[in-house]
Amino acid sequence: MQAQPTLNAIELEKLKDKIKDIRIAMLTTMEADGDFHTRPMATHDIDADGTMWFFTYDNSNKVDEVRKYNRVSLAFADTGSETYVSTTGTAEIVKDQAKINELWSDFLKTWFPNGKDDPTIALLKVSIHAGEFWDRPGGKMVKLFEM
Amino acid sequence: MQAQPTLNAIELEKLKDKIKDIRIAMLTTMEADGDFHTRPMATHDIDADGTMWFFTYDNSNKVDEVRKYNRVSLAFADTGSETYVSTTGTAEIVKDQAKINELWSDFLKTWFPNGKDDPTIALLKVSIHAGEFWDRPGGKMVKLFEM
Ligand SMILES: Cc1cc2nc3c(=O)[nH]c(=O)nc-3n(C[C@H](O)[C@H](O)[C@H](O)COP(=O)(O)O)c2cc1C
Repeated sequence: MQAQPTLNAIELEKLKDKIKDIRIAMLTTMEADGDFHTRPMATHDIDADGTMWFFTYDNSNKVDEVRKYNRVSLAFADTGSETYVSTTGTAEIVKDQAKINELWSDFLKTWFPNGKDDPTIALLKVSIHAGEFWDRPGGKMVKLFEM
Repeated sequence: MQAQPTLNAIELEKLKDKIKDIRIAMLTTMEADGDFHTRPMATHDIDADGTMWFFTYDNSNKVDEVRKYNRVSLAFADTGSETYVSTTGTAEIVKDQAKINELWSDFLKTWFPNGKDDPTIALLKVSIHAGEFWDRPGGKMVKLFEM
């Protein structure tokens, strides 16, 4: 097993703080033809090592796409509070019912009406290795971290 | 010159309507190492053929990135009104002072304090060829168009 670089606690707290009121991430993957594909995804807690988890159907386009090309970006935008955060990472598909049970909450029924025991549900695990945010009003970019 | 597919008027009106209150797009490009890179960009009007224009410095990372790999995605997210739109396209760098003058407005001084006559300003022209939006409350995806 290869040791992964991890965010330090300060970087992680900053990232958490920036996105805590933005419950939706715009996830970008690459399609087989090289086009980018972006869609909104409901976010969950961030692990202490900077991992983010998402629920997905295991037969969805995004699953195919990350299996072919595992780089992704996650963008967080709140035009009201003018908060913009962007992170870059790699994604993998994880089928782990214990983790699904742990992360499940009923608001996910909007997208997964059959609930957490639906056998076609999987987790998309994103290991982020770089992040930036923009502070108003000047809109200057601040590097959160880069590994 | 190759003829470009263009959005029809209905698709364009729908797209315009969806993003009219979201002044900021999250632009994703690819870095030389294959990572994705996303940042917020101030949007302007959409041309009748679905072209979107952005201001940039011609020595910025995004200019390098689209010169190497010209696919981009533009995501529009407003968590308040629950509006999510995503478009996919190709980008090119355009140095055209007449077009810069036409599109300039003074709010851009936040990012371009030297104003529209700064010789290092360029336009990033994005020709979009696919778009999606999500309708609440179900969050089901609706294809805007695909070319
Ligand atoms: C606010 C919002 C949140 C969403 N959250 C999720 C989610 O957590 N998981 C998911 O698979 N789809 C979610 N969707 C639907 C996706 O955006 C997308 O339409 C669907 O997953 C199919 O994507 P794909 O064909 O690219 O794989 C959400 C949609 C909206 C509008």
